[in-house]
Amino acid sequence: MGIEIHGTAASTCTGRVLLTLFEKNVEDYKIVQVDMAKGEHKSPEFLKSQPFGQIPYIIDGDVKLFESRAIARYVTKKFADQGTPLYGSSPKDAALTEQWLEVESQSYNGPISTIVFNLVFAPMFGMTTDEAVVAAQTAKLEAVLDVYEKRLSESKYLAGDFFSLADLSHITYTHYLMNVAQKGAIYDSRPHVKAWIADLFSRPSTQKWLKEAGFAK
Amino acid sequence: MGIEIHGTAASTCTGRVLLTLFEKNVEDYKIVQVDMAKGEHKSPEFLKSQPFGQIPYIIDGDVKLFESRAIARYVTKKFADQGTPLYGSSPKDAALTEQWLEVESQSYNGPISTIVFNLVFAPMFGMTTDEAVVAAQTAKLEAVLDVYEKRLSESKYLAGDFFSLADLSHITYTHYLMNVAQKGAIYDSRPHVKAWIADLFSRPSTQKWLKEAGFAK
Ligand SMILES: N[C@@H](CCC(=O)N[C@@H](CS)C(=O)NCC(=O)O)C(=O)O
Ligand SMILES: N[C@@H](CCC(=O)N[C@@H](CS)C(=O)NCC(=O)O)C(=O)O
Repeated sequence: MGIEIHGTAASTCTGRVLLTLFEKNVEDYKIVQVDMAKGEHKSPEFLKSQPFGQIPYIIDGDVKLFESRAIARYVTKKFADQGTPLYGSSPKDAALTEQWLEVESQSYNGPISTIVFNLVFAPMFGMTTDEAVVAAQTAKLEAVLDVYEKRLSESKYLAGDFFSLADLSHITYTHYLMNVAQKGAIYDSRPHVKAWIADLFSRPSTQKWLKEAGFAK
Repeated sequence: MGIEIHGTAASTCTGRVLLTLFEKNVEDYKIVQVDMAKGEHKSPEFLKSQPFGQIPYIIDGDVKLFESRAIARYVTKKFADQGTPLYGSSPKDAALTEQWLEVESQSYNGPISTIVFNLVFAPMFGMTTDEAVVAAQTAKLEAVLDVYEKRLSESKYLAGDFFSLADLSHITYTHYLMNVAQKGAIYDSRPHVKAWIADLFSRPSTQKWLKEAGFAK
């Protein structure tokens, strides 16, 4: 019996979990669709498994887990012996992976999710885009990317010269900003960031996610 | 040669690291004071170690690390064989610890840090308190605490019947809200949350942090 993922492939948080499964060559999983348009994620039944009414959560035997980054860590540890070593190859690599995963969650995710919400999801749901908020959050994101540009001039990936969970965690929102909102210029103007993004999107796991999520054929 | 912690004991993020060291019975550490009033954390020298200009960061031999939750994880893993088992005693315990640590970072930290900033730090630095923001963030925090109240009616601590890194990570900001901003009523009105908070603040490590940070004698 494999891992049940309650969510939808195209969502950024479910995507983070799928990318981790793909990198770890886990094939025994299935997606249980949550119909957010119908508000299924706010039903009393759903709230028993994810009390904040958000996707995704997983069921893996007797482990029931939500929070996409906690699930990504769990999958990485459970399948430590197969696929990409997403924590590198030493305790120091693992520590730096956690550091940059925190940076993604604390500093990158806030601004980018707000920008993508305003430019992509708000229009989709008939809400208005708040341009002042977009401008302010874009300035914040630029400052974060300046830190990344410097870091990526010293090592190929964020945590070192290995692709890690920290890099992976950036992919889904970056896709939305770059390919859906068409705001990729923010990456292109920084050469090391640009090369890093190109590398992340050339990975078979990223390509596979884009297909499963309906963004590519 | 022990762990060097660059920060100040009274800060919420440095406090998170100190609490972890205390729980793991690590005595070989020293605090290297960062004088934030003088803007030391924005100096070119400091930015080489923490590119966002924030405390804390640590140096432990050849490991240099920032992001308080990444440091807390690192210390917990490095000293796995001593002190409190902050990840519990099974992979499932560890997964649930990571889940609730993410909840703290994603859902608790945002509102509480904004409230504490407005009620405690803004007046301290001659800035004005934005009461509308405090009200909105208090409503968010109440919703999060409703989830905690339900969870803590099922288990003694967030991740299960063991004190974990997830519980620990709540202590410093909770102290500021409860004891400095005097807004403890938000906890007292929820019986299981109230008992949990009382338990967290009765721990010797919490008492030790309050002393080191100058809040208690
Ligand atoms: N911190 C959570 C966030 C989950 C989240 O925001 N999920 C979104 C989809 S990507 C959602 O369910 N949004 C609906 C809502 O918040 O009502 C995680 O990483 O799993
Ligand atoms: N996500 C970081 C946040 C660090 C942080 O916000 N530190 C505060 C003190 S608790 C700080 O240095 N603030 C000064 C500033 O942001 O300029 C962590 O957990 O280490």
